[in-house]
Amino acid sequence: MNDLSSVGLVAPQTATFGTPLTLKSGASLPGFTLVYETYGTLNAAKTNAVLVCHALSGNHHVAGFYDAAAPQKTLGWWDNLVGPGKPLDTERFFVVGVNNLGGCHGSTGPMSINPATGKPYGADFPLLTVEDWVAAQSRLADHLGIDAWAAVLGGSLGGMQALQWTLEYPERVRHGVVIASAPRLSAQNIAFNEVARQAILSDPDFHGGHYYEHGVLPRNGLRLARMVGHITYLSDDQMAEKFGRQLRHGKPHFSYEVEFEIESYLRYQGDKFAESFDANTYLLTTKALDYFDPALDYGGDLRAALSRAQAGFFVASFTTDWRFAPERSREIVYALLHNGREVSYAEIECDAGHDSFLLNAPHYHQALAAYLKGIS
Amino acid sequence: MNDLSSVGLVAPQTATFGTPLTLKSGASLPGFTLVYETYGTLNAAKTNAVLVCHALSGNHHVAGFYDAAAPQKTLGWWDNLVGPGKPLDTERFFVVGVNNLGGCHGSTGPMSINPATGKPYGADFPLLTVEDWVAAQSRLADHLGIDAWAAVLGGSLGGMQALQWTLEYPERVRHGVVIASAPRLSAQNIAFNEVARQAILSDPDFHGGHYYEHGVLPRNGLRLARMVGHITYLSDDQMAEKFGRQLRHGKPHFSYEVEFEIESYLRYQGDKFAESFDANTYLLTTKALDYFDPALDYGGDLRAALSRAQAGFFVASFTTDWRFAPERSREIVYALLHNGREVSYAEIECDAGHDSFLLNAPHYHQALAAYLKGIS
Repeated sequence: MNDLSSVGLVAPQTATFGTPLTLKSGASLPGFTLVYETYGTLNAAKTNAVLVCHALSGNHHVAGFYDAAAPQKTLGWWDNLVGPGKPLDTERFFVVGVNNLGGCHGSTGPMSINPATGKPYGADFPLLTVEDWVAAQSRLADHLGIDAWAAVLGGSLGGMQALQWTLEYPERVRHGVVIASAPRLSAQNIAFNEVARQAILSDPDFHGGHYYEHGVLPRNGLRLARMVGHITYLSDDQMAEKFGRQLRHGKPHFSYEVEFEIESYLRYQGDKFAESFDANTYLLTTKALDYFDPALDYGGDLRAALSRAQAGFFVASFTTDWRFAPERSREIVYALLHNGREVSYAEIECDAGHDSFLLNAPHYHQALAAYLKGIS
Repeated sequence: MNDLSSVGLVAPQTATFGTPLTLKSGASLPGFTLVYETYGTLNAAKTNAVLVCHALSGNHHVAGFYDAAAPQKTLGWWDNLVGPGKPLDTERFFVVGVNNLGGCHGSTGPMSINPATGKPYGADFPLLTVEDWVAAQSRLADHLGIDAWAAVLGGSLGGMQALQWTLEYPERVRHGVVIASAPRLSAQNIAFNEVARQAILSDPDFHGGHYYEHGVLPRNGLRLARMVGHITYLSDDQMAEKFGRQLRHGKPHFSYEVEFEIESYLRYQGDKFAESFDANTYLLTTKALDYFDPALDYGGDLRAALSRAQAGFFVASFTTDWRFAPERSREIVYALLHNGREVSYAEIECDAGHDSFLLNAPHYHQALAAYLKGIS
């Protein structure tokens, strides 16, 4: 958190789309609702709109707060970045945050009622891809009267959406901002996702994805999924610095209760997440991550795949991010440069691993602010 | 596997110890049995004995085979290293492999009958430390009439035991061979263990560790534990090379069935392990890993902690091992050198990650063979 002012009290809005959406899997949704928030003012020419795409556990609540009495408790997940005078300056830009299709915070997803059955979709909600999210977001752009985004911006999985926007709708994105992301998951990335999925799918309370009808939640599976995820969000160094081998009770007590502080941290994070996130949404989001691979239709040639992009780019990575290491961002940068795109690339020294993209690491927000300042 | 001859058909032996063993936790075992194997011949002076300590999922069956009709299927886990003419040459050395206390392959452990109740120990089996294993192994040395080992040797957790031997019984170990190991776990190492433990502990079939009595096994928890473990055993590069983003069916089929080859590999490894290993043993072994920290009683000063060692040392690490990276081995090397110990250190280029220690990577076995050749 920095000490600049916030966008203040905000409230989500919804937009409902009646035209069916055909998904990359071939499945179709008869219609859908997206929940979103906006900050700042859309100018008359509608040229100052910026879309912020969220990552695995994010949502539409990017900035501001819901409860004036408890702003810190209801703060948007990227409030340090978005606001008046902040790098994504709401005095200049009209910023849109959206909960993705398939989400669990208000947009149509597995928890929504399936019109075909009158019951929640659950496991019957179709699997989605980054392309599908971008297609759904383009309907929101239409709804808001935005022909082209000044920028589409995101970290991690959000960065993949920003990249996909520049490929799918080159004429509708002037700048792509891709932070702590990758052009596709590695086998190791997929492996971690697969462990998370197996933890959920094998939870007896999962009931094949129809747990809502059974009045239970696969809390344990989701908790394990989040624990393994958290290991990949932090750097080894930061874990060492933050927790080290710190013993909860000063000395070993030889039981399976919390012994080391890192155990306590992981259990807490897992428990908290299991109460606040939907397991089906988690599952389908990890699958969208796995499937993302713009080069697949180009014989694996990322340079050919990115030739469609017309936007300018800001790409950033973090030195201790081992989930999506700087090498992965450089793949994107080199492929864009090969296509003659204008690319600003910042490799930020930060010990916080993948989670760095959510923090205000030295130089990170400055570099991003400088880039966004240059956007006309 | 190399093409040198094997020690051939082998059979496990057992040794039972009637004197109680007080453990580091303060708990005590009234007595215990260790299952072990030997290869080669103990010389008359009993000076050519080498102890091989096993890692997380290993056991006493280090070399040779149990079934002459199917040698490959029943081969010891380090058969490529131990045998006539091999680096640990059974024509020179008398090699001992032992299943650790708390194990699930014949030594006294959670599956054994608790004399106090007449039922399997299960969760009542006391938690163990590397120090306890070494103390139990010293009884086996007594039993075999071995005053001092020519060498104690191990990889990963086995390397920790080798190191602990040189500290606990400096006069009983002439050489310590510590491969792909660490002087203590990092917070990240503990975090992975904790996820594995939580997967087992939260499996409804775990029944608080007394699943034997319920006629079930916490297969799912153990399967997840092994899957997450496997990610840390392989290097990112090797996973990329071996599996990459290879799709099972050539193209995505948009379901939670196996999509990428890496998913198939992890599920297979998890399923296999869940059928062959005991969950309580897995749990207590991960705890022994967490607790290992010879520097703890020395205010964290590893140099002071290792001042007790009198042995010569061979230490090896592997460039792509991110579970116990070369830096961790160097910590041991520097602390030993500070104490004036003779140390040979090899940092081996191998793309197989932590599992490299089980393979015959170029230069690795040569370096180890050269060191062991120099042992008189």
